[in-house]
Amino acid sequence: MITHPSFTVEPWCLRETELNLEVLAQSESVFALSNGHIGWRGNLDEGEPHGLPGAYLNGVHERHPLPYAEAGYGYPESGQTMINVTDGKIIRLLVDDHPCDLRYGQLLEHERVLDFRTGVLSRTARWTSPGGRTVRITSRRLVSFAQRAVAAVVYEVEPVDGPASVAVQSELVANEQLPTITGDPRVAAATRSPLVGEEYFAQDTRLRLVHRTEASALRVGAAADHLVEGPGSTRWTAQCEPDVSRLTVTADLEPGQPLRLVKFVAYGWSGERSLPAVHDQVDGAVAAAVSTGWDGLVAAQRAYLDRFWAGADVEVEGDAQIQQAVRFALFHVLQAAARGENRAIPAKGLTGTGYDGHSFWDTESYVLPLLTFTAPEAVAPALRWRHGTLPAARERARQLGLAGAVFPWRTIEGAECSAYWPAGTAAFHINADIANAAVRYVMVSGDEEFDRGEGLDLLVDTARLWRSLGHHDAAGVFHIDGVTGPDEYSAIARDNLYTNLMARQNLVAAADAVTRHPDRAAELGVDDEETAVWRDAAARMAMPYNDTLGVHEQSAGYTHFQRWDFEATPPENYPLLLHYPYFDLYRKQVVKQADVVLAMLEFPNAFTEEQKARNFAYYEALTVRDSSLSACCQAVLAAETGHLRLAYAYLGEAALMDLDDLEHNTRDGLHIASLAGTWIALVSGFGGMRRHIGEDGRPDLLGFAPRLPEALSRVAFTVLMRGRRLKVDIGPTHVRYRLVKGEPLEVLHHGEPLTVTAGAPVERPVPPATARPEPQQPRGRRPAGLATEEEQLRPETQE
Amino acid sequence: MITHPSFTVEPWCLRETELNLEVLAQSESVFALSNGHIGWRGNLDEGEPHGLPGAYLNGVHERHPLPYAEAGYGYPESGQTMINVTDGKIIRLLVDDHPCDLRYGQLLEHERVLDFRTGVLSRTARWTSPGGRTVRITSRRLVSFAQRAVAAVVYEVEPVDGPASVAVQSELVANEQLPTITGDPRVAAATRSPLVGEEYFAQDTRLRLVHRTEASALRVGAAADHLVEGPGSTRWTAQCEPDVSRLTVTADLEPGQPLRLVKFVAYGWSGERSLPAVHDQVDGAVAAAVSTGWDGLVAAQRAYLDRFWAGADVEVEGDAQIQQAVRFALFHVLQAAARGENRAIPAKGLTGTGYDGHSFWDTESYVLPLLTFTAPEAVAPALRWRHGTLPAARERARQLGLAGAVFPWRTIEGAECSAYWPAGTAAFHINADIANAAVRYVMVSGDEEFDRGEGLDLLVDTARLWRSLGHHDAAGVFHIDGVTGPDEYSAIARDNLYTNLMARQNLVAAADAVTRHPDRAAELGVDDEETAVWRDAAARMAMPYNDTLGVHEQSAGYTHFQRWDFEATPPENYPLLLHYPYFDLYRKQVVKQADVVLAMLEFPNAFTEEQKARNFAYYEALTVRDSSLSACCQAVLAAETGHLRLAYAYLGEAALMDLDDLEHNTRDGLHIASLAGTWIALVSGFGGMRRHIGEDGRPDLLGFAPRLPEALSRVAFTVLMRGRRLKVDIGPTHVRYRLVKGEPLEVLHHGEPLTVTAGAPVERPVPPATARPEPQQPRGRRPAGLATEEEQLRPETQE
Repeated sequence: MITHPSFTVEPWCLRETELNLEVLAQSESVFALSNGHIGWRGNLDEGEPHGLPGAYLNGVHERHPLPYAEAGYGYPESGQTMINVTDGKIIRLLVDDHPCDLRYGQLLEHERVLDFRTGVLSRTARWTSPGGRTVRITSRRLVSFAQRAVAAVVYEVEPVDGPASVAVQSELVANEQLPTITGDPRVAAATRSPLVGEEYFAQDTRLRLVHRTEASALRVGAAADHLVEGPGSTRWTAQCEPDVSRLTVTADLEPGQPLRLVKFVAYGWSGERSLPAVHDQVDGAVAAAVSTGWDGLVAAQRAYLDRFWAGADVEVEGDAQIQQAVRFALFHVLQAAARGENRAIPAKGLTGTGYDGHSFWDTESYVLPLLTFTAPEAVAPALRWRHGTLPAARERARQLGLAGAVFPWRTIEGAECSAYWPAGTAAFHINADIANAAVRYVMVSGDEEFDRGEGLDLLVDTARLWRSLGHHDAAGVFHIDGVTGPDEYSAIARDNLYTNLMARQNLVAAADAVTRHPDRAAELGVDDEETAVWRDAAARMAMPYNDTLGVHEQSAGYTHFQRWDFEATPPENYPLLLHYPYFDLYRKQVVKQADVVLAMLEFPNAFTEEQKARNFAYYEALTVRDSSLSACCQAVLAAETGHLRLAYAYLGEAALMDLDDLEHNTRDGLHIASLAGTWIALVSGFGGMRRHIGEDGRPDLLGFAPRLPEALSRVAFTVLMRGRRLKVDIGPTHVRYRLVKGEPLEVLHHGEPLTVTAGAPVERPVPPATARPEPQQPRGRRPAGLATEEEQLRPETQE
Repeated sequence: MITHPSFTVEPWCLRETELNLEVLAQSESVFALSNGHIGWRGNLDEGEPHGLPGAYLNGVHERHPLPYAEAGYGYPESGQTMINVTDGKIIRLLVDDHPCDLRYGQLLEHERVLDFRTGVLSRTARWTSPGGRTVRITSRRLVSFAQRAVAAVVYEVEPVDGPASVAVQSELVANEQLPTITGDPRVAAATRSPLVGEEYFAQDTRLRLVHRTEASALRVGAAADHLVEGPGSTRWTAQCEPDVSRLTVTADLEPGQPLRLVKFVAYGWSGERSLPAVHDQVDGAVAAAVSTGWDGLVAAQRAYLDRFWAGADVEVEGDAQIQQAVRFALFHVLQAAARGENRAIPAKGLTGTGYDGHSFWDTESYVLPLLTFTAPEAVAPALRWRHGTLPAARERARQLGLAGAVFPWRTIEGAECSAYWPAGTAAFHINADIANAAVRYVMVSGDEEFDRGEGLDLLVDTARLWRSLGHHDAAGVFHIDGVTGPDEYSAIARDNLYTNLMARQNLVAAADAVTRHPDRAAELGVDDEETAVWRDAAARMAMPYNDTLGVHEQSAGYTHFQRWDFEATPPENYPLLLHYPYFDLYRKQVVKQADVVLAMLEFPNAFTEEQKARNFAYYEALTVRDSSLSACCQAVLAAETGHLRLAYAYLGEAALMDLDDLEHNTRDGLHIASLAGTWIALVSGFGGMRRHIGEDGRPDLLGFAPRLPEALSRVAFTVLMRGRRLKVDIGPTHVRYRLVKGEPLEVLHHGEPLTVTAGAPVERPVPPATARPEPQQPRGRRPAGLATEEEQLRPETQE
């Protein structure tokens, strides 16, 4: 584990007490600001030094050809890459002609604080220029939740130890030079200078640049306006050229005399709207921001976040680091989604270019669960984005010879961008993940308009897909062959358990939705024969199980594969995919990430308690967690099967993925799904929250089975359910259910039905966990919180 | 079926009676000349018009990066492409300043004849220039079997209807402009101008060019010398520049007065030798050719071919087209292999750039069987080439985490060039195919030096591979998981039957070879424990079988997959891989090419007669023959199971693959393995020849089970076996075994042991075939010879 040396542990903020250039790119990710529409990496105001400069607009991407040395039918021809748009963050500083670049001169003090309650990134620095003049620099920055198109910066500089002539250059910069991060010349070509200038403007304190992308033909506008406060010597001029629009402010400052610049930036983009329209749009947004003013933006930011925290906060006592981490996680998940408005939630949010800015199944399976229970207003737009890609998904299904819709494994705007089909096209479970997210959202929100609209469309087309993808055998059992489940160390398998369970739910949910909305279903051409076929396939779905071992098989025959030789795998060979070929990983029992374990999380009633315990132990011994999506699921099942210390260790791994840069790639952006996993580990793990399946096979109520690990004295969280706000407050021996608002709510407490009414909290004891032997992880893969030094160091020969 | 309109059916040659520019590229392939070292496509002497100009040297290639949109561990980084080397064929003609280009003027007559007995390609043309002068052009061309580095052309022109001033330009041309045939810019870059000039020379009648390749760093030299015969007006000059060296001969000719040019061309290449060395090498070779003279080269060519035909000819009575086709096939297979001398035999020979000039498993599995029984002197060098790539194969095994050697799926010089691992790396059977070829060669040739040398090395390293690739299950059964068999419409399967049978033989053969050569085995570090482990794995090898259906499974669980919907597959959607995704092909029962059927061909004793019949019928109904490697194997098993009409139809398909351009890609080069399949269909099909496995599990003698289809009245062939030459002469009711030379030979006739002695032919009756119901092919995939018009046209609704 690499603990960042200069982060302090505080409950409501992330504070970096000194600047460490070696982890600059990582810090740019953790300090990134976003509202789901605009993303600004936490780059230093001056632009340099930087790890990776980044300003992103959700959906703005460039296309490039996907190369194949050996092409095949149905391979996507075109890739999509999120591009760095016009950078509005940059405010350069010159002190007596010395550019303020923290690599030169002497940095006496540097602190950055991301406040989860105010949503403002603050920075304080004291720097002595190579010329010997010391200045104090402060900046505050926000990307507005309230005004979606707006970001703003307050930048202030004052000399400390003598007079200084300063120049502050506030810029809009397009086509920033980026570090080379791809070996593919075609991707490099698409991202090197992705923006073609259409308009550049600078006048008085106002700046504007409008560009468009070449292949994807998107128009991107950025505008800025400024308030300047300084002494009488203060002057400014504005200049522009195609890729730079700049306000230069100069002043002669005495010690203690500040120059202050407030910069309001607005962004807009469109694939449809004309240059004048985009031009007016960003000018209008920036004018509105100026009118609101910095203090107004700050106040609105705080109000937005107060509302969020009231319904989303998780309190953790006994581990201050986890307390901080879960709020860091909630804050960043909110940032990734809040104002996306019918755009995707990328795997890295808008914090970096990792995975090319693509969205995957983890949006629906990890991020949306958190948002559904805490910020449901962000869920419907995310699902509407998926719904908006239905035409592309139907076309993809047609191309693949299937019915219904096939959603892309990875995409920005809806077309499949995965160039490796065994882990892309074959991972059909994403279709059920989307359907499941819709079912979850409707259950929790009660959004009937969505249910009969986008929800029904999504369910019907995915159900049609499953029916066409699977087939009955001679005995009438329904099989789904040749698919890849969540575990990416297996592929192209028969009857992946997770996929089959998800498909079963998808088919039943679609049939139910059709029954609820017969008029709309008729429009879609669904009749009773079709729903009967869906229900039949669901009822006869194969569920691979090894009777001898008494465990479910990840896929048919999986338990008969050779076990991976973990003893012969040295620690430096993880992640395995960088050191072993897929062919070898695929044919052996080794699990990259929760698969059967995820199935047990999603379908608590499909397994007996003993099956869960045996399955968990069996797959625990095979799971290497080479994916950031794994630890949180393992935490949940570890908690359920009574392994609370282990669950706590996995919680730590999920929670610290980015703060401790556990996978050494936080520089490329945050692991938004793993961050959401922190919440999952706490709420579904120690809170034991599940959607329980009723007699009729449908999820109908929330169950809780709270139980804390020794290290935690209290976990309290709030979930939203059909307009109610339920607070679950878990102590070591008792748990209290309190309805903060809304109609009485029925829940389960360790299986016992309870009705919670506003003003009448219900308290219940926590039953003891069943004692079971501690599951074993593959050699060297125990989670950090558990491994003893002795275990870590024991020589191979002793084993 | 597209029958080339202008090929005549003749027993010993291929004659084209008119020039058809639309199938020019196809004719260039079928008229290609090669000796396994040099390959000249059948381009017109004048260079243009052309389909694809081509001069190749076996092994001369360029490297290029292999692109991956999503890279993975162990993916080959570098591809190899056979390049067009210096073209020595070109002899341009000007008639009264009109360039002789057959697209202009009027072509009165054009005939090309490839004579299988002389090995000379002859051409006769009468052409009227746009200026109105008619000339007669004749050329003869050979690539010498006797003088490996040498090719030669005799070119003659004479005016017919009046005097003409002619100029003949005989050239060496490097970096010829080629039609664009690749979409990959990096491959295009590597092949566009692959040769970097090092030396150019022209003096008197002598020409020379030396070049090298950029990335692969190979030096290529070509030299030419000429004899000129013409009237007194004849003059010549030689000129050169970096990519062209040219002799220009001019003469004023009266009608009937010929100008005759004999051009001797020599090639040499090396990755090691210096410029002066290569320079001297080609000059020396051309001088030797001049010394031999054209007539000498022709005589030696004839002598070489006489020897070949004496041991290789197959006589077919009753079908003149098949008679021609099998000789065409034998001739081209010989051309591909004769003088390769420790170089690969590419899938297209040296007839075109199809498959990038790579060699695959079909060299060992289709081409070497023919050569082993007819031209064994070409087999050892081909296997020595494989042996020479052992270091690369061992390195590949190490990279993949396996023991022994992993030979490349496709390569020119030994490194894996397959960029799609499910059909490349995973197709491990190639390793057993190589071992099997070595076992076959040793059995038939009795080459003990090879057996204890290269043969042992190949067997040991492949046996080690199999042991490390497979594993035992709890019941002690040995499984090989995650591999791809011959059928490329399945991949990454468990216990591919063909692979397991081949691996079993490989393991046993290696153990036997170690027993024969304990001293050498000790050098390789093999001890009795290791061979015991091999024998155990072989003895416990899994053989997937479906008890209910009574058929072997292509791989474990294969018969439980969904059947491909052949009824819904329109004829234009074949080959399926161009119209359906791999994911769908892989997970359904649809067979591209013989797999279980190939296993039954290779291991006749591993199946009962009834199993063979049931297996054949079962897989026949699934096999679409989207590979040229399939029909010949189906012919063999169809014959064995008594379906002689069907076998005959498949023979036709194999035999006419290139002559009728059945797969529409003969332009890229000939299907050498399918050509060899013509021989296999006749010899192993209607001759029923198999290597039979003795009591001890080893192949120890040849069995025959001759039986002719109604259409054929006689098939007679010769096979070489340990210095003997056995002639098998099959009639409708009787078969005669005659030992042409050598010690008495024991063979089987329909299971009955016979000893054949020189001078005492043995005649036996042909027993009647067991009557069985006619197997059914997938809809629309009956071989052409069988389908009735009614069947072809019947509407879908009737089925």
